Amino acid sequence: MSEAVAERLLARKDEILERLKALLRLPSVSTDPAYAEGMRATREFLMARLREGGVADVRLLDGGGQPAITGAWTGAPGKPTFIIYGHYDVQPPDPLELWKSPPFEPTIRDGRIYARGASDVKGSTLIAVETVIEFIKAGGCPVNIRFFLEGEEEIGSPSLPAIIERHPDALAGDAMISADGGRASTTVPTINVGSRGLTALRFSLRTASKDMHSGRYGGAVRNANHEMARLIASLHDEAGRIAVPGFMDDLAPIGDREAADAAALPVDEAAFYGAIGAKPYGTPERSVRERITLLPTIEVNGMWGGYTGAGTKTVLPCEAHAKLTMRLGPGMDPARAQRVVREHLLARAPEGVSLTFEAGGPGTPAFTLGEGHPLLAAAESVIRRTTNRAPVRARAGGTIPITAIFKERLGIDTLTFGFAMPDEDVHAPNEFFRLSSLEEGLRAWPLLLTELGRLDPAALRRA
Amino acid sequence: MSEAVAERLLARKDEILERLKALLRLPSVSTDPAYAEGMRATREFLMARLREGGVADVRLLDGGGQPAITGAWTGAPGKPTFIIYGHYDVQPPDPLELWKSPPFEPTIRDGRIYARGASDVKGSTLIAVETVIEFIKAGGCPVNIRFFLEGEEEIGSPSLPAIIERHPDALAGDAMISADGGRASTTVPTINVGSRGLTALRFSLRTASKDMHSGRYGGAVRNANHEMARLIASLHDEAGRIAVPGFMDDLAPIGDREAADAAALPVDEAAFYGAIGAKPYGTPERSVRERITLLPTIEVNGMWGGYTGAGTKTVLPCEAHAKLTMRLGPGMDPARAQRVVREHLLARAPEGVSLTFEAGGPGTPAFTLGEGHPLLAAAESVIRRTTNRAPVRARAGGTIPITAIFKERLGIDTLTFGFAMPDEDVHAPNEFFRLSSLEEGLRAWPLLLTELGRLDPAALRRA
Repeated sequence: MSEAVAERLLARKDEILERLKALLRLPSVSTDPAYAEGMRATREFLMARLREGGVADVRLLDGGGQPAITGAWTGAPGKPTFIIYGHYDVQPPDPLELWKSPPFEPTIRDGRIYARGASDVKGSTLIAVETVIEFIKAGGCPVNIRFFLEGEEEIGSPSLPAIIERHPDALAGDAMISADGGRASTTVPTINVGSRGLTALRFSLRTASKDMHSGRYGGAVRNANHEMARLIASLHDEAGRIAVPGFMDDLAPIGDREAADAAALPVDEAAFYGAIGAKPYGTPERSVRERITLLPTIEVNGMWGGYTGAGTKTVLPCEAHAKLTMRLGPGMDPARAQRVVREHLLARAPEGVSLTFEAGGPGTPAFTLGEGHPLLAAAESVIRRTTNRAPVRARAGGTIPITAIFKERLGIDTLTFGFAMPDEDVHAPNEFFRLSSLEEGLRAWPLLLTELGRLDPAALRRA
Repeated sequence: MSEAVAERLLARKDEILERLKALLRLPSVSTDPAYAEGMRATREFLMARLREGGVADVRLLDGGGQPAITGAWTGAPGKPTFIIYGHYDVQPPDPLELWKSPPFEPTIRDGRIYARGASDVKGSTLIAVETVIEFIKAGGCPVNIRFFLEGEEEIGSPSLPAIIERHPDALAGDAMISADGGRASTTVPTINVGSRGLTALRFSLRTASKDMHSGRYGGAVRNANHEMARLIASLHDEAGRIAVPGFMDDLAPIGDREAADAAALPVDEAAFYGAIGAKPYGTPERSVRERITLLPTIEVNGMWGGYTGAGTKTVLPCEAHAKLTMRLGPGMDPARAQRVVREHLLARAPEGVSLTFEAGGPGTPAFTLGEGHPLLAAAESVIRRTTNRAPVRARAGGTIPITAIFKERLGIDTLTFGFAMPDEDVHAPNEFFRLSSLEEGLRAWPLLLTELGRLDPAALRRA
């Protein structure tokens, strides 16, 4: 049946593209209250489509912030239940002046649809929604489905724990399939088998109780900017290796399988660095693919201190600030990573330099879909059939917090099965989604749901 | 005659205090166009007082910005001509909420007059003005006088070169006496014999052509913040000594006289560091006084890069920025200091890190009133008589750009003879001026003008 469903989906590809355009016209920027109406309209649009398509129990799940959308189809008794994850919020469109066509006026150029949220992740979310609707139209789905379309993914899912807490029924399932989390290559078929974790730490540094005049005090007082620079410089060695003692101690060693998977998807360094105008860098003992997917990082995302306005101000600043995030490799504990970095900074701060820390939440560990996991086998089978190639197992360098949150809170694993590609300028001007990806997704999702229908629910939960 | 003039000035001390209050009520904030009316009213006030007091040729000197006020008394043929420098503009009063009494409502508490500009420098400027007027009233001044009351001191004197260029007659003199540039101690009488120079350099650093996603690129690309931190950290050693090779090469060695002068005015470290809540720091081989007056500095007044807003953003920033100013010791060339720092930074920047520089103007060299200078001898004699103590020769750690500008453009030396004290919260809330300083100034200025009347104009210009 899955092939017939795929055929029907492809037959109404133009209609689905029009639906995607309509969805992209709704400006659902979760971080900015000015877009509240766009958020509301987007929810209405998706809920109306789910209801119209025969999905039951369509409603909002409130967790105190932007609500998530749920809806269920449970007509496959004995079959496993899958939560289908997507998100309806998007990044802010700024800087507007760099867009070639307006961010909320979807525009097709050269086989791509340009709009904010096209790649991240309204395109892939709609593929999943339309696939389920098509199955329902054809008599039923091979598996039970609960949609979970989040409205706060782009702001770090602050209400997600509360939503999970308050609405356990809506999230009861055997595994999750995520429309978010795209493909790792524009040329090689890949299956995502993991992602790095993430934890955040902010700190401020103080050398005196007030800003000083650089003429009156300069030469005899510690400048907060200089001290901050020393501390930040101490985090890495010259080659870019992390220099914080003990930071890597709980990193799982890179095994043969991980090394082989990484080697199977080598980074084209000329293209990789050329696209961003940068030079090769980082832990020399590891390949670029390993550096960006398996090794942890400590990145100072922001730092500032003293006068940053126009012209010159001869201030000797007493405080400086930094925001760090760390990407975590498999095995690393987010709380431990934070603690080790805090201890390193405290140990390096000389007398007269006081530090204050602010932890950026509990953090997310790395996620791995283990060798032999039934979700992995199902996805590989589908990709082999739709592409006629064996997919490469790829880890994501980024973090998919829901994978860890759902594993931790609900005990379920996640298969990411999105169709975004890595060059589609997500979070940047001129975000786009390939029309060919829309087609590939509409071909693959029916096959995937059919494969998943063959799995034993108990085996999924044991995996 | 000078003692009689001083007596008469002191006799009308209350009237002069009322005049000072009236002057302080006029909000002459040069940096903010909203205060244009306050600037105009302040000019009118001072010009009216000069005219009323018998000063001739009172007028404005236009240089394209806030005009300066001039006026002359030239009734002492054969005697030297002194330019009396002061400024009528003040710093902005912000933050207003920290003032105990409103900044433009002068209020007397505990023998101090609190108001914006009281210490910097309307108090000392008015002492000079009233002294000259009192001499004129008594039949004439011991020297020829040209007032030069600037309106842009607090914004870096942008029009000063143009004013000097356009109005050479108004600035023809043998030396300058500045009411700006106060005393170095609240307990020991001092004479200022020099100040550090100043030069500014801004630079930006780039590691890629665009900001990147820390998940997709983290671990394989240089983070601009990390690179900026390394460069800033390379400017000093751990003890706070400047680590830029060659930077100190043109610094005049600290001689016996300089060391003795510095030792004669030791910094009370407990009070100095206690007042700012900081710990002792800086070149260990030199005393705190030497560190803050004779040694050069490189201070990063501002640095910033990446995301500095609320919350967390997992950006891997491609650019970072820094604003530096350097205080220069005697002998140092501002252009050379800039060049040496630029070369150091360029030499330390690894492949893949590009730097761009923006020089902050030509800079100002340090200023020194040499041993045996007739202005110095005159000032020392006056202070000895008014305090019954031998004044200590003190250098200022800050920069008095007019001293260097007048030396360079007009070939004349400057004696700073202001009565502000170093603890009077200039440029800060609750600025004040001591009423005792008003009295000391009114006693000392008549003596000074009389001493200066004994000098040979030619000797002044040769000094």
